[in-house]
Parts: sequence; structure tokens; C-alpha cells
Amino acid sequence: MKTCEHTLLLKPGERLDDLQRNGYMLIQNPDKFCFGIDAVLLSGFSRIQAKDRVLDLGTGTGVIPILLAAKSQSNDINGLEIQEESADMAARSVQYNGLADRVHMLQGDLKEAASIFGKQSFSVITCNPPYMIDAHGLQNERMEITIARHETACTLADVVEQGSLLLKDRGRFFLVHRPFRLVEILGTFTKYGLEPKRLRFVHPYVDKEPNLVLIEAVKGGRSRVTVEKPLIIYREPQVYTEEVLRIYKKEIDAKL
Amino acid sequence: MKTCEHTLLLKPGERLDDLQRNGYMLIQNPDKFCFGIDAVLLSGFSRIQAKDRVLDLGTGTGVIPILLAAKSQSNDINGLEIQEESADMAARSVQYNGLADRVHMLQGDLKEAASIFGKQSFSVITCNPPYMIDAHGLQNERMEITIARHETACTLADVVEQGSLLLKDRGRFFLVHRPFRLVEILGTFTKYGLEPKRLRFVHPYVDKEPNLVLIEAVKGGRSRVTVEKPLIIYREPQVYTEEVLRIYKKEIDAKL
Repeated sequence: MKTCEHTLLLKPGERLDDLQRNGYMLIQNPDKFCFGIDAVLLSGFSRIQAKDRVLDLGTGTGVIPILLAAKSQSNDINGLEIQEESADMAARSVQYNGLADRVHMLQGDLKEAASIFGKQSFSVITCNPPYMIDAHGLQNERMEITIARHETACTLADVVEQGSLLLKDRGRFFLVHRPFRLVEILGTFTKYGLEPKRLRFVHPYVDKEPNLVLIEAVKGGRSRVTVEKPLIIYREPQVYTEEVLRIYKKEIDAKL
Repeated sequence: MKTCEHTLLLKPGERLDDLQRNGYMLIQNPDKFCFGIDAVLLSGFSRIQAKDRVLDLGTGTGVIPILLAAKSQSNDINGLEIQEESADMAARSVQYNGLADRVHMLQGDLKEAASIFGKQSFSVITCNPPYMIDAHGLQNERMEITIARHETACTLADVVEQGSLLLKDRGRFFLVHRPFRLVEILGTFTKYGLEPKRLRFVHPYVDKEPNLVLIEAVKGGRSRVTVEKPLIIYREPQVYTEEVLRIYKKEIDAKL
């Protein structure tokens, strides 16, 4: 019975949120960090094949691995999260969704990911990292949110360096980040032997600056990038565009 | 009398094209390289103040300096062009438009620009360089067009290096280029101490990939870039958007 399962599964303050894909649910604590549209857009931007071995660096409560399980045929999708409480929620979400044979969550520091998993052991890395450069002072008082938003536990260079070490030759790195750091991001990718090959800017409205950028980089690729058409979130206030609705609901529609 | 002036001014094969700004005209030879929308968009993207000393590297027939003379109050706008025939047309266009006291055209190799003009002698550099990496084989048979489109006479690194040498500290470099070379362009700017601060992608239609990118880099700037809202060229086939019409016709409208 679902109710009993919930009681067993959820700890105080936690809730189950509907991912709107394959009926999958995610355990989150609304007082801590909850996933946003950036994680959903990154999962929509990532191209995962059945044979891929995937690792999500800094997976939080595991939303990206579970969404990738919904949209791909890969049966080797992994998440690494430094915070014990988030990693525990992620593991219980995997269990709740019956994905234990395909999705694996591990608690650990992404700065040691290549040691933990071994070099060149993945064909795909995904990451929705903290966006803000470690800011003295203006950090959220809740440590879980600070670590998710600010580069206190890891920097962009840590993420990209570990991703490069973890990827096989021609492996793909899918990242979501803020456009204001674009120059630094592209420079960091190339510094670590990852060549940005696809960029897509995410605009709240068609006539507004982008507030997110999606990047695919390929290990050992040659320098030539495709900037894709803009991804527009809202057609009008509170009304998603058709494309965003498709990204959110593709799996559900496919089942109807 | 205009007709007599034309006869004196124009050489065989040349024509006078209306720049639709301040009544300015441009001498071009339609059998050679003629300016495109990229030059117009770069002049619209560039922010020139009255006190700026400006140099357009690889100015061709001088369209960018003349458009900048129309849209700014600067009285020290310069163009450097390696091809004698183009530099000659540019100088005659300056003369025709009565701009000899504000705009100066010089024939010379942009790879030697810092020697010709002196280091740190400009506050603004503009450039609409050849977009294509030196392609063996697939080059236009007309040398004028090949040099304008392919990196046969100069490379991206030449352009950026000379721009950096020519600029004062905090000077601005305005470039138009193709998005497929974005990673290389941004990396080259930072390599030569120019920090990209503004990016704007130019899309033929709102739902299409960009085919141009406009970049402003600042000498000695810190790493933080603003990606602006998309610049859309066509509202529907053969109908420009309002913004493009404004860029093309701002000066005329202002006078009406």
C-alpha cells in the first residue's frame, strides 16, 4: 500500500514530488534545496543512448539521474552527492521508483570522483553545479542551500577537471550554468581537453536576455560549436511554451 | 553638379550605394566584394562616444567607418585596408561624403597595424574579419573576395593580437563573426588580454540558429559577460523586424 510505503520511506519534513515522467516521484525536503527547471532542461538537453554509462556530479536529491532513467534506455546511471542527507533522499527515491537495477546513488566528494569511480569509466557526465562564485557574506544561512548554490564545496574547475578525468575519449559532458560565466566556462572546458560542441541559451521570454545556458562538450573534439535556436520558457506570464511543455511531459505523453 | 562629381569619382565598374544614413553613399564595385548586413549590425552594436579614437581593421571599402561617422560624434575614425583597390574606393567615399576631417582611410597590412599607428593609440577597435578558416581549394577565384572571406591575408589571432596592442587600457573591441567559431574567438580574446563583456547572437528568424555573433571585449576587463537578447533579422520572409529597420534607418528617422 502506497500510504504505508510513504510512511516507511519519508522522514520528517520530506515530501514526494511528481516528476511527471513515467510516474516517477522524488523525495525532497522543501526546507532544504529543491530542484528547479534547470535540472529538467539539462535532462532534456542531454542525449543519452542505451549503451551509455552516465554519472551526474553533485546530484543533490537525484533528480537528474531519475529523469535520465525516464528518458533513456541506459541501465547504468549514477549520481554522486557530497551531502549525506541529500544522498540518502536520492537513494530512497531510486528505491521508491523501482530503479535500483538501473540507477545508483553514492555519497562522496565530487573532487575525488575520478578516484572513486576510476579514470575514463564513463561515456557521459552531467552536472547542474553551484552557479555562484564563492561569495563571502551573502550566503544562505542553511548549509544545504549554500552548498547547492555557491562554490563552497567545489569550483567550476573541480567539476570540469573531474569530468574530463572520468570520461572516455569522445565522451560527452552536459552542463547547465549561468550565461554571465560563459567565457570562463568555455575556457575551463578547453583547458581540460573538453571541446564545447553545442550551446543553447535559455530565455525566460523571447525578447529577454538568457538566464541559463546548456552546454555539451566532447572529450578530444575539434573546435567547432553549434549555437542552437533559443529555448524560450514562457509564451506569456505563467504559460510555458510548447517546447518546455514537451520537455516536462514527453514521457507522459508517450504513454498516453 | 552631382553627375559631374560621379563621373570624376567613379572608376569603371563602380557604383554609388546609398547607406541610408545622413545621406551618405558608398563606392563599391559589384563585381568585387560588397558589404553585407554584418557590417551594418556591427556598426549598430558598437558604442562610440565623441571622445573615442576609432580604428576599423580590414575596412574594405570603408562602410564601417562611414556608418560610425553617421551614428557617432567621434571625429577621429580610421580604416585600414590591405587591398589597394578597396582602400582607394574607401578614400573616395570619404571625400564624396565630405567626411575628410573626421574619417581617415589608409592602405596597409593589419598585421602591422600596431607599428603603423603605435601601441595603445585607440580607445575603440572594430573588425568584420574574414570568417572562414583558410580553406585549401574552396576559395573564390576573385582574390578580392577570397581575402575578404577567407583567412588568407590574416587570421583571427592576427586581428585580436593587433587589436590588443592598439587599444589603450579599458579600450573596447567590437567584432562580428560566425557562431561556429565562438569558443575559439572567446579563447583568443582572453589569450590577448581582452575580456568579452557583451555577446549578441543574430538569428535569421526567432526559431532558427544564429548565423552571426556580435562581441564586445574590453582590454583588462574582469571575467563576466552579458549575453543579450537575440537579434532577429526577419519577422517573415523578406520583411525585416522593427529592430533591424531601426538599425538601418535610425539616422534618417532622426532627421525626418
